[in-house]
Amino acid sequence: MAAATAVKPSRILGRHEELAAIGGLHPQGLNREAFTDADLRARLLLLSWAEARRFEAAMDDIGNLFVMRRGEADDASPVVTGSHIDSQPAGGPYDGQYGVLAAFEALEAMDDAGITSRRPAWMVVWANEEGSRFQPTTMGSAVFAGQLPLEQALAATDANGVTVGQELARLQSAMPVRRLISSLPFEAYVEAHIEQGPILDQLRVPVGIVTSIQGLRWFTVRVTGETGHAGTTPDRDRRDALVAAVAMINGLRLLMHDAEDTVRFTVGRFDVRPNSPNTIPEEVLFTVDFRHPAAAVLAHLGDQVRAVCEANAMGCSVTVEETLASPPTRLDATITEDIRRVSSELGYQRMDIVSGATHDSRYIAQTCPAGMLFIPCRNGLSHSVLEHAEPDHMVAGARVLAGVVATLTMR
Amino acid sequence: MAAATAVKPSRILGRHEELAAIGGLHPQGLNREAFTDADLRARLLLLSWAEARRFEAAMDDIGNLFVMRRGEADDASPVVTGSHIDSQPAGGPYDGQYGVLAAFEALEAMDDAGITSRRPAWMVVWANEEGSRFQPTTMGSAVFAGQLPLEQALAATDANGVTVGQELARLQSAMPVRRLISSLPFEAYVEAHIEQGPILDQLRVPVGIVTSIQGLRWFTVRVTGETGHAGTTPDRDRRDALVAAVAMINGLRLLMHDAEDTVRFTVGRFDVRPNSPNTIPEEVLFTVDFRHPAAAVLAHLGDQVRAVCEANAMGCSVTVEETLASPPTRLDATITEDIRRVSSELGYQRMDIVSGATHDSRYIAQTCPAGMLFIPCRNGLSHSVLEHAEPDHMVAGARVLAGVVATLTMR
Repeated sequence: MAAATAVKPSRILGRHEELAAIGGLHPQGLNREAFTDADLRARLLLLSWAEARRFEAAMDDIGNLFVMRRGEADDASPVVTGSHIDSQPAGGPYDGQYGVLAAFEALEAMDDAGITSRRPAWMVVWANEEGSRFQPTTMGSAVFAGQLPLEQALAATDANGVTVGQELARLQSAMPVRRLISSLPFEAYVEAHIEQGPILDQLRVPVGIVTSIQGLRWFTVRVTGETGHAGTTPDRDRRDALVAAVAMINGLRLLMHDAEDTVRFTVGRFDVRPNSPNTIPEEVLFTVDFRHPAAAVLAHLGDQVRAVCEANAMGCSVTVEETLASPPTRLDATITEDIRRVSSELGYQRMDIVSGATHDSRYIAQTCPAGMLFIPCRNGLSHSVLEHAEPDHMVAGARVLAGVVATLTMR
Repeated sequence: MAAATAVKPSRILGRHEELAAIGGLHPQGLNREAFTDADLRARLLLLSWAEARRFEAAMDDIGNLFVMRRGEADDASPVVTGSHIDSQPAGGPYDGQYGVLAAFEALEAMDDAGITSRRPAWMVVWANEEGSRFQPTTMGSAVFAGQLPLEQALAATDANGVTVGQELARLQSAMPVRRLISSLPFEAYVEAHIEQGPILDQLRVPVGIVTSIQGLRWFTVRVTGETGHAGTTPDRDRRDALVAAVAMINGLRLLMHDAEDTVRFTVGRFDVRPNSPNTIPEEVLFTVDFRHPAAAVLAHLGDQVRAVCEANAMGCSVTVEETLASPPTRLDATITEDIRRVSSELGYQRMDIVSGATHDSRYIAQTCPAGMLFIPCRNGLSHSVLEHAEPDHMVAGARVLAGVVATLTMR
């Protein structure tokens, strides 16, 4: 509890203001895409704070930045906490930034509480989590976890043809920190983040204990019918791709209906050809985004998408292509229980929650025991300049994180 | 019957080939948009045929072209037949052209049969029926019927900024025919046309007796919901504009369901914003094209479109705007009966049919008794380079038209 109570609200909230100003939009919001000048300046600000605390810093080959507080057993694998500081082009200063500031606060609080931990405690800033400028998303953690080849990540280009490799060389020369070559395995990883969904905000619960990151399956459905004159073609002679697509979506909504409201099913894209008011649609392409925390449900329902589309083709032909599949990530039960216990000891309302969005934790959980905690964001809004989290919730999350990290460094 | 039997298959089919070559595409199809060089050359070919027959010609201020066979009572109002020779940019040589050639054949057949009619018989070529180069469609007949101001039609511009007035001046100077100033009322108007739908072709009936041109109502429906993250937003918190639009289309299809298959209901355009696979749709705009031959049904069903959309809004807001309304046109019962009787006397299979597309007859029927007959087109295809009509059907339609025109000129 010593670390948790050593968290200073004025410090973390002040640092939030200071960091949010780098890339800040007016009157609110944040534009701090990966590997930009704003990203560099934000990193340099973090380094200045680390230097003042005499925490060592290091960066690896994809630009993941580490700030290290020593432990007694300096060769013991570290307990790591962090998130990211890059943002969407019209994002907010809580997504990612909050988890980084809560992590730094945890290290400072341990210092202030005079804690001598057995293991080192590290803060990490994962590079390019958002993937808005350079694809894919969660690039830094994917490379770190060995799930994305470094060369492929370095070769990614933005809309102007600039590569990650070029931007990274610029970053490295401007940041005088040592190169982290071998990524020794972490003892544990914990990440704090805003929920990016409405559940905690609606229920007014300040701490969400993330039990898993749901899996997802993406499908592209292409329906091909026959065009014709809207005025002259009888219904019985039509093979209307839009009518068939609507029937398919009805069928899929029935399939995906879930009284518990755990299934996430979205048709986000729907393109019609020729898309003219008096012409029967010849072709419709629509996407399915289907997510669930349980692998069995992802398999059971997802495997029926094709059959439901075919059963509702209404004389049209249909192809269903699965374009993306990401399995659910179950977070470590021991760390999850630690978060639950520390929240309880600090007297915070808390609840278990599944992460709807993906996070760097997804890749790191493949390399070591990992846990996450969420704080609420207003109306569930994120990736929006309207993104907002309450100061009280930011402090609550930071206290829980500091308590959990301190506990883990003692094991 | 003398006029009908004087129709010469080799003549009308040969003229079809000759006229189809002007603006003809390879290997098939026609590009002869209104007021182009091809339109002019086609008109000059018609004039050369008229001259050979010593039929007088005249043109009015919007470019409608008349070829006149005298009657005994030269001051009697004429019986007029015709259609148009302009085409879509990638159209076929039957839509319009067939009705013009059948009309000219009717005048020639009356000549060949030595018929001295009481009334004059005129062939008409309506200017710019297609409206693909200059809007609106059926421009020539709309101006003739006083439904579109001449000045407005002359001011219409094509994609290159050329006006109808400019093109018409060029046409008039190249065509040495007298100016038709006062448009005396017609005694009657009859038009032959390909069906542009599949019914006659499917039932293998060569002659369709058009009882009416159906009316239409167009609506634009704009559904506004709320965007959100596809992974984090529970179903109960969504206001998904696409889900609501799909529910509205389901509701509209139930409303428009018609066991007799007379209702024509089409959602041809469907635009989603932001149209991204992992984002809940914030806005959908879709169109409704609704047609029916009965004014009462057009009113009864069309007036429910707004309520059905509102009842299926699923928490979204919805606006329904009626963007076009065209009442049904009932064709003259006497002329319709004439077409039926002549078809029967000639031994042709025939059936009553409603015109799904609009035609110049729609405007002319507001000024005098009007009738129409259809011949089949293969697979109902029109506005397509694949457009095709059978020679036997072209001859059948021409015979019926000649018989009807000859009959009407005797009244």
